[in-house]
Amino acid sequence: MNQVRVIQIKQSVMGNNDARAAKLREELREQHTFLLNLMSAPGSGKTTTVLRTIEKLRDELRIGVIEADIDSTVDADRIHATGIPVIQLRTGGLCHLEAEMTQEALSGLDPKALDLVILENVGNLVCPAEFDTGAAKNVMLLSVPEGDDKPLKYPLMFSTCQALIINKIDTIASFDFDMQTVKNRVKKLNPDIVIFEISAKTGQGMLAWTNWLRNETIKWNQS
Amino acid sequence: MNQVRVIQIKQSVMGNNDARAAKLREELREQHTFLLNLMSAPGSGKTTTVLRTIEKLRDELRIGVIEADIDSTVDADRIHATGIPVIQLRTGGLCHLEAEMTQEALSGLDPKALDLVILENVGNLVCPAEFDTGAAKNVMLLSVPEGDDKPLKYPLMFSTCQALIINKIDTIASFDFDMQTVKNRVKKLNPDIVIFEISAKTGQGMLAWTNWLRNETIKWNQS
Repeated sequence: MNQVRVIQIKQSVMGNNDARAAKLREELREQHTFLLNLMSAPGSGKTTTVLRTIEKLRDELRIGVIEADIDSTVDADRIHATGIPVIQLRTGGLCHLEAEMTQEALSGLDPKALDLVILENVGNLVCPAEFDTGAAKNVMLLSVPEGDDKPLKYPLMFSTCQALIINKIDTIASFDFDMQTVKNRVKKLNPDIVIFEISAKTGQGMLAWTNWLRNETIKWNQS
Repeated sequence: MNQVRVIQIKQSVMGNNDARAAKLREELREQHTFLLNLMSAPGSGKTTTVLRTIEKLRDELRIGVIEADIDSTVDADRIHATGIPVIQLRTGGLCHLEAEMTQEALSGLDPKALDLVILENVGNLVCPAEFDTGAAKNVMLLSVPEGDDKPLKYPLMFSTCQALIINKIDTIASFDFDMQTVKNRVKKLNPDIVIFEISAKTGQGMLAWTNWLRNETIKWNQS
C-alpha cells in the first residue's frame, strides 16, 4: 500500500472564511457529499471513533477521511490501513482549520465519488469552534476522563455542534463524571443537540450514533 | 468568604511578547517569586494537581494561583475554597496567555508576598506552547487516558517544558497507554525533561513532584 498523502498548510487565510465556508458547503451539497466536522480535545478518541464508524458504515456509504494534525501522520496511518481514502493535513502549528484548508484537503480525495467525508479536526476545544470549515454538520466528542465540567469551560464548542458523542463510557467507574450533570449543562447551552454515549474501544453505543450519521448523510445527499 | 476575583482579558497584544516575558521574569526573580506555568489538554487534571500540590507545600511556601479559562470560575472556586489567594483570568475565547495577561493577573495577587505562583494556563496543547508567559519554568501535564501518541502530535508543547507530569496513573489498566513508549517519545524531543508519574486523585507520586517544585522554587528565590 502506498503512503498517506500529506498536505502541508502554509498559512491562515482568515478573512472571508464564512463566505468561503458557505460556498464550499453549497458545492458539497450539489455534488451529494456530506462533510462531517469532528472536533474534540486531544486524546478523546476521535480516530478510534472514526475507525469504528467506518466499520459500521463502509458497506453502505462511500467514505473518505481528512486527518488534521499539528504534526505526524499517526492518525492517517490508522485510517489508511483500512483501505479508506485518507488525506493528512499538517497545520504546522496552526490550532484550527478554515474552509480553504478543508477545500485543499478535499481536492486530494475526489469527493464527488464519496457520500461521506469525515474531517477529524485538530485536537483542541477552543479555536476549531470559531471557524466554519464548510461542513454539513459539526460533531463534538467529549471523553469521560475529561470531566463533566467541560461545557462550563468551553461553551462555544458545545454550542456550535449538532451532536455530542460522549466517549470512553466503559471507564466511567474510574472517574468522577456525572452523566446527567454533563447532559444538563450541554442542553442548557444547546437545547437541540443530540447526545450519544459510546465506547469506541468496546463498540458500545455505536449503533445509535452511526444510525444518526447514516440518516443525516442520506438526508443531505438527497436534498 | 468573598468571591473569586475575575479579570477579563480584552485582546491579545501579540507583538513584543518575548521582550515583555523576559522583563516580567526578571522582575519576579528580583522579588523572589517563582512563577510556574502549568499547561495541558482540557481535562488532564490540572486543578486537582494544583490542589494536591497546595496541600503538600502550603506549610513551607506562600502560594498563589492564577486560573485561566475561556469561561467560568469553576477551577478558581475550587482553589478559593482552600483559602489560597487566587485570581481567575477569563480569556474571552483567546486560546493562550501572553506575558502582559500574566502581569495583569499577578497585579491582583500581591506577588511580593508569595514564594510560588502557579499559573494554570488554558486547556490546550497547541497555542499556549507558543507564548512565553514570563514563567520561571513550564510544566506540562499529560493524563493516561489521552494516549501515548501525544508527543508525536504536539511536539512543541513537549519541547518547551522543563518537566512533564503524567497524571491519572491509577487508571492505566483501563487504557492502551505504554509508559515506556511515551517516555521514549518525550525524551527524543526533549532529552533534559524531568518526568513524574502521579495520580492527583489518589495522591500517588505527589512527593517526588512536590520535592522538585520546592527545590526549583527555593533555587530561584535565592538566586
